[in-house]
Amino acid sequence: MLKLYSFGPGANSLKPLLALYERGIPFESKYLSAASFDQHSDWFKKINPNGQVPALEHDGKVITESTVICEYLEDVFTDYPSLRPADPYLRAQMRIWTKWVDEYFCWCVSTLGWHRRIGPLARSLSDADFEEHVKKIPIFEQQVKWRRAREGFPQEMLDEEMRKIEFSVRKLEARLAESEWLAGPEFSLADVCNFAIANSMEVNYAELVNARDTPHLLAWIKRINARPGAQKMFANAPGRAPSHAEVMADESKAKVTL
Amino acid sequence: MLKLYSFGPGANSLKPLLALYERGIPFESKYLSAASFDQHSDWFKKINPNGQVPALEHDGKVITESTVICEYLEDVFTDYPSLRPADPYLRAQMRIWTKWVDEYFCWCVSTLGWHRRIGPLARSLSDADFEEHVKKIPIFEQQVKWRRAREGFPQEMLDEEMRKIEFSVRKLEARLAESEWLAGPEFSLADVCNFAIANSMEVNYAELVNARDTPHLLAWIKRINARPGAQKMFANAPGRAPSHAEVMADESKAKVTL
Repeated sequence: MLKLYSFGPGANSLKPLLALYERGIPFESKYLSAASFDQHSDWFKKINPNGQVPALEHDGKVITESTVICEYLEDVFTDYPSLRPADPYLRAQMRIWTKWVDEYFCWCVSTLGWHRRIGPLARSLSDADFEEHVKKIPIFEQQVKWRRAREGFPQEMLDEEMRKIEFSVRKLEARLAESEWLAGPEFSLADVCNFAIANSMEVNYAELVNARDTPHLLAWIKRINARPGAQKMFANAPGRAPSHAEVMADESKAKVTL
Repeated sequence: MLKLYSFGPGANSLKPLLALYERGIPFESKYLSAASFDQHSDWFKKINPNGQVPALEHDGKVITESTVICEYLEDVFTDYPSLRPADPYLRAQMRIWTKWVDEYFCWCVSTLGWHRRIGPLARSLSDADFEEHVKKIPIFEQQVKWRRAREGFPQEMLDEEMRKIEFSVRKLEARLAESEWLAGPEFSLADVCNFAIANSMEVNYAELVNARDTPHLLAWIKRINARPGAQKMFANAPGRAPSHAEVMADESKAKVTL
């Protein structure tokens, strides 16, 4: 049995989802609702005590951490097309890119995302309900992040994260100006993991990611959206996230600003 | 040609060094001097434009990032004993542990290490010499860290890092109380990468890492120090870092406090 618990095709959840669809590995998909705090529910914490998605259940064992899950799927399902370069040097480049997402790119985008979405959600709860919820969060740093989001992140922190986002966008654009895919000539987990964070940036960071300033990054985002794996992933999401084309067609969804 | 540039057997540099010695892979070792800022010199930035060690040169290609280098060595030198579990689930556990070092454990220990050692070094320079040096640092966040170390890290930041160090020590102790090695029954890169950060803690954090509070962590540190690979690594370091036994025998080296 292969079952993926996720929030659907966005952020870290997108990584193993896209890897599975791209490679054509059959799996069962279980979507959790972030708005209902499913990830901190007792039933899910029995699966991942950290209360985080994505989590993969495979033959009675649970694997956590999005990037580790993608590598696990490569180690186990060797009969399917691979997203890990066969050449060791290119594979190392792939890992430098996925590591960079996990240590830098995902965090700055995450803070701004929390500021924009989790902050209002947390403020919509009464003090008592909020505290009740925070108590259920297993990771201390996540508790702190929820509290910060509710109070409002310090402007200094938001400015610093925005600086890092700008740096990240420039870095991706520079690389994609010289190479079709991030880790070399082939589409790989480097692209999957960066796409997980970058896909929504044409909408959420239109002042940074646009046809004038980042043509190569934009073309790469569109190339990945056009791949059959990505199309299937977006089409199969129940209560699904809108596709790239749909988001771009619906300007009202673009009105998210700092 | 296989050549490793490193600061010698401590922190991130220790990871690939120990992996090479443990596995018995012949290599050329080039030690850089942190006190002379070798890592930010022009000659080294031609090898790693980020100005960071460790860096591995292999047949004309350069691989960076300590954890990525360790995986690269596994991908390339398959005829030598492996430090990566063959079982995919255990391999995933190994990666969760090495990832945790890179994203959590190494950072809190690093900040305190900078506070204790880089701060005084940075303050020993004149303003002009300091600025001259900072200009040579390629990574913006590293420049900021040098400035912060010189000014003195805010107490709030030091307290938060110390909280994370305490959490890390408790986490390692709990795991090592139930398992001889971090990722399962065999010594693996999970142990190598955590040892790189934890080895000096009996000295630098004696109030946390000691026979009473963390017997299993201490036994694990000693077990790794006793391995032939580690012994060879410490013995071969020119201007070498003192071995565990030497450090413990020399109490004067232990007088480092916040």
